[in-house]
Amino acid sequence: MTDRERPVRAIRFAAAAALTLFSLASRADDGMWTFDNPPIDQVQQRYGVQITPSLLKHLQHAAVNYGASASFVSAQGLMLTNHHVALDCIEQVSTPSRDLVAHGFTAVNRAQELRCPGGRARVLQSTEDVTAAVQKAMSAGTNDEQRNALRKQAIADIEAQCADPKLKRRCEVESLYSGSLFHLYRFKEWDDVRLVFAPEFQAAFYGGDADNFVYPRFALDFALMRVYENGRPVQPPQFLKMAAQPVAEGDLVFVAGHPGRTDRLQTLAQLKAHRDVLLPLQLASAEAQQKLLHAYSSRSPEAARQAVDRLFGTENWLKSMRGQMAALKDEAVMQAKEADEARFRAAYTERGLSGNPWADVEAATSRHISQAKALWAVGYGYRTILSQAGMLVEAAYERGLPEAQRMPDYREAAWPDLERKLKADSPIYKDLEIARLSGQFLEAREFLGAEHHFVKAVLGSDTPEAAAERWVRGSQLDNVAVRTALLSGGVPAIEASTDPLIRLAREIYPMHRELVRFKEEQVDTPLQQAAERLGQARFAIHGRNVPPDATGTLRLSFGRVAGYVSNGQTTPWKTTFGGWLARADSFDGKAPFDLSPQIQKRRQQIDPRLPLNFVTTADIIGGNSGSPLVNQRGELVGLMFDSNLEALGGRFIYTDSTARSLAVHIGAIVHALETIYDAKAVATELRGGR
Amino acid sequence: MTDRERPVRAIRFAAAAALTLFSLASRADDGMWTFDNPPIDQVQQRYGVQITPSLLKHLQHAAVNYGASASFVSAQGLMLTNHHVALDCIEQVSTPSRDLVAHGFTAVNRAQELRCPGGRARVLQSTEDVTAAVQKAMSAGTNDEQRNALRKQAIADIEAQCADPKLKRRCEVESLYSGSLFHLYRFKEWDDVRLVFAPEFQAAFYGGDADNFVYPRFALDFALMRVYENGRPVQPPQFLKMAAQPVAEGDLVFVAGHPGRTDRLQTLAQLKAHRDVLLPLQLASAEAQQKLLHAYSSRSPEAARQAVDRLFGTENWLKSMRGQMAALKDEAVMQAKEADEARFRAAYTERGLSGNPWADVEAATSRHISQAKALWAVGYGYRTILSQAGMLVEAAYERGLPEAQRMPDYREAAWPDLERKLKADSPIYKDLEIARLSGQFLEAREFLGAEHHFVKAVLGSDTPEAAAERWVRGSQLDNVAVRTALLSGGVPAIEASTDPLIRLAREIYPMHRELVRFKEEQVDTPLQQAAERLGQARFAIHGRNVPPDATGTLRLSFGRVAGYVSNGQTTPWKTTFGGWLARADSFDGKAPFDLSPQIQKRRQQIDPRLPLNFVTTADIIGGNSGSPLVNQRGELVGLMFDSNLEALGGRFIYTDSTARSLAVHIGAIVHALETIYDAKAVATELRGGR
Repeated sequence: MTDRERPVRAIRFAAAAALTLFSLASRADDGMWTFDNPPIDQVQQRYGVQITPSLLKHLQHAAVNYGASASFVSAQGLMLTNHHVALDCIEQVSTPSRDLVAHGFTAVNRAQELRCPGGRARVLQSTEDVTAAVQKAMSAGTNDEQRNALRKQAIADIEAQCADPKLKRRCEVESLYSGSLFHLYRFKEWDDVRLVFAPEFQAAFYGGDADNFVYPRFALDFALMRVYENGRPVQPPQFLKMAAQPVAEGDLVFVAGHPGRTDRLQTLAQLKAHRDVLLPLQLASAEAQQKLLHAYSSRSPEAARQAVDRLFGTENWLKSMRGQMAALKDEAVMQAKEADEARFRAAYTERGLSGNPWADVEAATSRHISQAKALWAVGYGYRTILSQAGMLVEAAYERGLPEAQRMPDYREAAWPDLERKLKADSPIYKDLEIARLSGQFLEAREFLGAEHHFVKAVLGSDTPEAAAERWVRGSQLDNVAVRTALLSGGVPAIEASTDPLIRLAREIYPMHRELVRFKEEQVDTPLQQAAERLGQARFAIHGRNVPPDATGTLRLSFGRVAGYVSNGQTTPWKTTFGGWLARADSFDGKAPFDLSPQIQKRRQQIDPRLPLNFVTTADIIGGNSGSPLVNQRGELVGLMFDSNLEALGGRFIYTDSTARSLAVHIGAIVHALETIYDAKAVATELRGGR
Repeated sequence: MTDRERPVRAIRFAAAAALTLFSLASRADDGMWTFDNPPIDQVQQRYGVQITPSLLKHLQHAAVNYGASASFVSAQGLMLTNHHVALDCIEQVSTPSRDLVAHGFTAVNRAQELRCPGGRARVLQSTEDVTAAVQKAMSAGTNDEQRNALRKQAIADIEAQCADPKLKRRCEVESLYSGSLFHLYRFKEWDDVRLVFAPEFQAAFYGGDADNFVYPRFALDFALMRVYENGRPVQPPQFLKMAAQPVAEGDLVFVAGHPGRTDRLQTLAQLKAHRDVLLPLQLASAEAQQKLLHAYSSRSPEAARQAVDRLFGTENWLKSMRGQMAALKDEAVMQAKEADEARFRAAYTERGLSGNPWADVEAATSRHISQAKALWAVGYGYRTILSQAGMLVEAAYERGLPEAQRMPDYREAAWPDLERKLKADSPIYKDLEIARLSGQFLEAREFLGAEHHFVKAVLGSDTPEAAAERWVRGSQLDNVAVRTALLSGGVPAIEASTDPLIRLAREIYPMHRELVRFKEEQVDTPLQQAAERLGQARFAIHGRNVPPDATGTLRLSFGRVAGYVSNGQTTPWKTTFGGWLARADSFDGKAPFDLSPQIQKRRQQIDPRLPLNFVTTADIIGGNSGSPLVNQRGELVGLMFDSNLEALGGRFIYTDSTARSLAVHIGAIVHALETIYDAKAVATELRGGR
């Protein structure tokens, strides 16, 4: 090669890169697969790699559900997840004088590890196909309503029979392929989870909301926790070991996590309802909440501290909905969906299947739309102190009903969750709750009008602010002992309570129940029944070659480590520590792009060439946060923490030309622990040195 | 401030940034203003800064036209421009054994400076409004055709009277505001320009075509030359001194340069013709040329070396046309144009102005479209060896005609340019010329059909490849002495020549002339006349408060140094050397993102925090490459070299929400000279240390 080749090779690269990306686009790495039906053929065909039973077992038992996703990474129960997944705990174990969000936290020894209030981790032990049992129970029904009730009862029975508190065993029946299959999931669950290490917020969430869903990215979005059993660290039978070789461009990776929800089998009518009615409603609400939280934060530094977690959640939610909206407004996406639905309808007719589930979906969707505002506004608000009151009231009354007649959130299987939420000793700030509830009352009045019975109940003759003040100020529900007593006291305790929020919740309960029933009977049940027929038809056509929509259960995704070209920008597969420092310098260190004091202090020790974050084509969605990424040998190479903006349409359709999932490089975690945070012990544990 | 403020402030930034950007957007920094009508009020109003006569004089006399733009930066005639502006020279002074493109060049002393063949630099000395004289001459005409001819004659007379070769004075009459004004421009011109310093291609054009028009950007796109007069460096009366304080975010900057062409006063009919016919035609042609040059380059390293400049030019042209196309396909842009045209039509009618220039434009545009393919395909190709033949043939015959009857490229004023092009001793590679011409012949056959008289003339019964081979192989036009003899020999020499390319050019000449005449008479003249009426009407409405379209004359732009948010990404106002190193690392040093050996060698000495490139809202376009950026004191702060993709619609409309012009930071130039290239003497000269 002569020296003259350089410039030409340089210029020619762009075309080559475009070709590569095009050919990748035609090889989709889509799907969040269940562990009992892994994408063996797809991975074999695309990557020439065999998914072995031992790899699957290893991953399944090392993967932890901790609200979102996590994994065991040492023999001593060390658990790796995202900082933003652990943030709820980090906030709760903070105090005004000891701010672990701002400063981070390192437990120098076990004794310093901090127990997370309400923290709960679980690992999937086994699954069992109970479709036959559920369907047999349903067959006694003579109409849809009966069959639906029988199914619920059958599921409740199966779950109840399976659960065993002594063995810390929890059980759930999961519906897959829109109700085509029912699988019983058995978990082992622990309620003692402790914080071991967290970086400071500015390192974990570098770039703030501006960089959220953005790539190239520079974030140490990780935290380490430890799971305890009987006061001692658990010794998990499987845990992930750090990869001997760092991940490289083009590598195949697997992701084990808990994607929350996709809607990839929804019909066009549903997508249009989301686009035209439901998402706009939620966007308006989220924008109002964001504004309100900003206003609250500006009151004082302490107010800002109280609101930061809510604000972060709200802005994350907003950006995510905007991404979904962009996908639904993308003509190419809707055209692809239209073509897909037309093919499906043709195949449905060809097979002589009866009924018109598309028309049923459309009718149910219309009913949903007709009550969308009430369904959104009537209730106890979004994780407010009034929701605690609502849960207490509803729990008391609903528990008196037969299992199948209860609202879904109050079935036996949901009880531990409910109890955890009500008994968690998380701080509740009344001023913040008043601000948030007044916003929600205002929104209810705007959506429903001043004469609506819910609006009258919450406001009376007051302004939203005055009403919120009146209900919250005198309440004692911010005291966990009061909540616990009301929970155990059942209906008599609830009816005897003079707590203003309990009084309000008692008044709201019948209206809320009516709407929940309406939604269940007029919307969800018909949709579920239609979806069942559609799911079964699709299942009949494609079998299990198509993965089911995400439902929060453990899933296996795969993909390759790959950069991309988007909006004319060639974007690399990874970022580096040097890139992080450079981004801060490029903004002259201005917030939110400032380096934390700790990073600044160690700037000279940081190796600028080491990888920090990287991107893959693996198919993930909200709930996958904290998922481990492993190489084909099952060794830990990274930690999923986000996706880029282009991937936000993933709720409805998977694409891989520019959509990417974002991970923290495992080498970055170890380098940060050792070089920036002096957390050498935990780094050694992560390296497997003990 | 407590520590708790950090995360909240971080999150709140995004909204604040969005607001800032929005308010910037409403204060447009648009316009490429002539120096006799600078934007004094606009800058005063927007920035509170007074543009002084001395600042204007300083900038005007330091700004150099060197093909594109450049500036004097020392008392010894040192001239700063872009590497890509100097590339033509750098290539020409290279040889296969001494590759200054690949390796860069540093003249250690004056004796080592390399003279650029055909290099020519000029500085605008003064301007004079000659509108009255031109209009007076035109008034003798009784119809448009006569008036047009009289105008041409008047302009030719004024230019001829003004020029003075002894004083190295060149003169041109420039039409402004679509022919509303005529200004005589007097230049001082030098033909001895020497290369002083050039970085290696990979540093100057880092990221290759992939990063072209992209920001964040990392490029040392600069070169230093020296202008000589009578064998000694000129001592320019004005030259730019490096700013004492580096430029900062929010700073006002001025840009003096030679924007080539904007079409911001074109009517909707013209824009639609560009969008639907003209640009698609050129895009198809450019794509074919790109493909052909890639194929040629892959023959051998030497072939790649020969083609690199053409390929770079073609790909740059392609990306730029795609950017224009995107702007024309942007509904918001077209709607803004529609609204503007509707307002203008209303004002036109209100003032009782006669005629319907919009209809005239539409008719002329239709005629243009009807012949668009022939106008594109018939001729001598795009800077090929056949174009040299064409210029020789046409020069001989056209020079025998009265000035006003000549084709525009052969008027007296254009002669020096023509002579320079024909006498430049640039290497011509016959294999490359054959490849390029065969592509153009193929395109002609595709556009016009095999029976078209031009296609028959060039192909005969041959394939495009065989025909190109036949015309080029036996030609001697690659020899500058042969071309010079033919040029001075006039018609007799041309008619006596048996050179195959001259024979072909003689055959093409009448067809080409017919089309050029058609375009001039049926398209350009009516468009010009309509544009004159529109321009005069607009001028009557707005006066000189609206700047004229760019026409390649010296212009003053202004703007602020500012980052932006595009496609969800918050983009900083500057990049740093550290960001450059990080981008290379992020791609694992793969081409075109590899660091040159020289940068790698000095990596440890480079200060990663120093600014490298930065962006401004200043309104520029092709031709501004190499323009100096100065602060409000007239001190040099940067060197314009590109715009981002969002700015490519600037041909038709200026926007500043995300459109940015890209500059090399002057500090980066000095740091590179001193730290990477050991070019301390020229760095000292640039710093003004002598």
